Amino acid sequence: MKAKKIDPFQCASIPAVFFGAGVMKNIGTAASRYGKTVLLVTGGSSLARSGRLDEIVSHLRGADMTVSHIVVTGEPSPEKVDEVTGEYRKKGADLVISVGGGSVIDFGKAVSAMMPVEGSVLDYLEGVGTKSPDGRKLPFLACPTTAGTGSEATKNAVLSRVGDNGFKKSLRHDNYIPNAAIIDPELSVECPQDITAACGMDAFTQLLEAYVSTKANPLTDALCESGLRYITDAIVPSATQGAGDVTVRGNMAYAAFLSGVTLANAGLGVVHGLASPVGGRFPIPHGVVCANLMGPALRLTVAGLVEMQDDPASHTVLDKFTRIGALFSNEVDRGKPDTVDHARRLVDTVYDITEKLGVPRLGSYGMTESDVDEIVSKADNKNNPVPLTSDHMREIVLERI
Amino acid sequence: MKAKKIDPFQCASIPAVFFGAGVMKNIGTAASRYGKTVLLVTGGSSLARSGRLDEIVSHLRGADMTVSHIVVTGEPSPEKVDEVTGEYRKKGADLVISVGGGSVIDFGKAVSAMMPVEGSVLDYLEGVGTKSPDGRKLPFLACPTTAGTGSEATKNAVLSRVGDNGFKKSLRHDNYIPNAAIIDPELSVECPQDITAACGMDAFTQLLEAYVSTKANPLTDALCESGLRYITDAIVPSATQGAGDVTVRGNMAYAAFLSGVTLANAGLGVVHGLASPVGGRFPIPHGVVCANLMGPALRLTVAGLVEMQDDPASHTVLDKFTRIGALFSNEVDRGKPDTVDHARRLVDTVYDITEKLGVPRLGSYGMTESDVDEIVSKADNKNNPVPLTSDHMREIVLERI
Repeated sequence: MKAKKIDPFQCASIPAVFFGAGVMKNIGTAASRYGKTVLLVTGGSSLARSGRLDEIVSHLRGADMTVSHIVVTGEPSPEKVDEVTGEYRKKGADLVISVGGGSVIDFGKAVSAMMPVEGSVLDYLEGVGTKSPDGRKLPFLACPTTAGTGSEATKNAVLSRVGDNGFKKSLRHDNYIPNAAIIDPELSVECPQDITAACGMDAFTQLLEAYVSTKANPLTDALCESGLRYITDAIVPSATQGAGDVTVRGNMAYAAFLSGVTLANAGLGVVHGLASPVGGRFPIPHGVVCANLMGPALRLTVAGLVEMQDDPASHTVLDKFTRIGALFSNEVDRGKPDTVDHARRLVDTVYDITEKLGVPRLGSYGMTESDVDEIVSKADNKNNPVPLTSDHMREIVLERI
Repeated sequence: MKAKKIDPFQCASIPAVFFGAGVMKNIGTAASRYGKTVLLVTGGSSLARSGRLDEIVSHLRGADMTVSHIVVTGEPSPEKVDEVTGEYRKKGADLVISVGGGSVIDFGKAVSAMMPVEGSVLDYLEGVGTKSPDGRKLPFLACPTTAGTGSEATKNAVLSRVGDNGFKKSLRHDNYIPNAAIIDPELSVECPQDITAACGMDAFTQLLEAYVSTKANPLTDALCESGLRYITDAIVPSATQGAGDVTVRGNMAYAAFLSGVTLANAGLGVVHGLASPVGGRFPIPHGVVCANLMGPALRLTVAGLVEMQDDPASHTVLDKFTRIGALFSNEVDRGKPDTVDHARRLVDTVYDITEKLGVPRLGSYGMTESDVDEIVSKADNKNNPVPLTSDHMREIVLERI
């Protein structure tokens, strides 16, 4: 037997995890080790309407904590971060807790980072400001209510300015990784079908792209495999007949968390390389973009790998696709995941999932053929295992208009 | 398809990882984000003799850091922790770095924890003192030179007092998990054969016991599988003809790191439940105890699981043993890891590895039949998937005298 070589790699820290239905009951205990005064960030009204917001506040107060509550709606903006930070730098807070989707988590992450420093968050935003964050922050707990972005595991907060000089930029530092992710699938059972589908496809794409990324390492491989193992049986039910099933929601929440860990450490592929210019031009939910592009991108990537089969590196990646294909056809435990058929079946499965989830095509958001060239000109392959050409990219987008 | 239920679980944070041959060159960059003044803790003379100590100090100084160097030999004692802490609380330090085996890492971990507080470490030791640590500490980087305890990933430091009122007790807090593990397999190539073998068997036992622990969760399962995948081909070569091979050492170092993560979050089994009273009575290296007990403990555990095959829980565990058995016989990729044969073959493989590594039997350290009853009376099953009886435990120890 010959030891498998592990190439040098780095992984950022992974937050503490509190996982399980009902685990939000322990939010007071989890939070109280970081201090007494909480800045609680939540999204729109659904958390309040369901009564869960009151429960969360009362769990925190039950642990003798003082709670200030902030509501964020829409995309998190630098101005809103500055407004909240300005107020609470004076009033003081020991820690920040976000309960919500990716935007709410990103907002809380940015506030926790800006509280101990001076000036505007714009000064520290990548590609916007001139200062580098030094990593100081208040402790930050992330409690996701959607299973999607994986922001509860990542070191960056995406802030947006909309309008003519609009941008989407990251505030980023290894220390901004949340101290803990408190993942209670009960919080996501009321998430609407279209959002659940889009978020789920985002997580699925992140796991799959990180898994076969040129920057993947044994640790991200292990976590991707685990996430993909749990997402396979849950992704369609979570947005259809199983939406109320906490087990299904739990599988998605677990997979989404791992998609955050792995994308941050292994990088992503051509789907995300195309999603960025698409998202910059059309207000299409990110997960919808991913869901649309994933089928054709995967088809062309697998085809490229099959052509390159003489290259041992392409073999390793093809084996990975094969393993996931086998997972979806439930054959991994019965053995024989050793043919390219499984990889091809994975491609079909991705198309099939997109179909079953009723993901709207890109054309329904106003995209036409005439937009494709500009999108492709701004796209890149990121860490895709096969470098696709502009023609390939054009084919991918055109197929989904 | 039916979503697999994930029971509620908690995982402590996982440190940032810098892995690879030569990665110690970056110690200056990694350390400088935590401050300017380093307390560097190392073990005996081998690091100095090989010239690596000078290199490390020069990498740190090259990053404009001031370095104070402390040497720890033997078991880390509370008195020595107090002595060092007393001195450096006055002199000041921004962070602590340990470069060494498990004892050196534990010592540095304890010093980093005691620096910002008052009093003796004895006040905070479990079962000795009356105070609970509040989690404050200096940043701490762990650079292992053996592949064994996994202390570079865990939240506790084991301190020992030898002699009549001797003890081995833990200083423990989630925050004591190192900020980063810097794992450079080049540091372990000179580790002697007997220590490599004992450490390797410790890591192997930790991975296997955590994997089948009653407290295992999907995240620890994924990490155990990954660690076991890399340990299989490396454990024997690492202490024999492949000792100088950085790839082999790297596989062991990677597996040992994961053994620390998983034991801390999933717990251990009867081997560790017996190793504790054995180690309390005889000065046998912990890894040697594990290596001796692992074969018979596994044999009885697998037999118990086969008897309990009507219980679905036992099936899940048996499947895990089967999967690892298949890994060792290199058959997992060719499929059919679906018979109890693989689990039985795993038992044989463990005996075989112990044999090939030339691990001395317990009797060679002075243990006799007359010691066994007392050892068994103080043993427990911990989180072993099958609760073994005292008779079983007696059989395990007797077999290895």
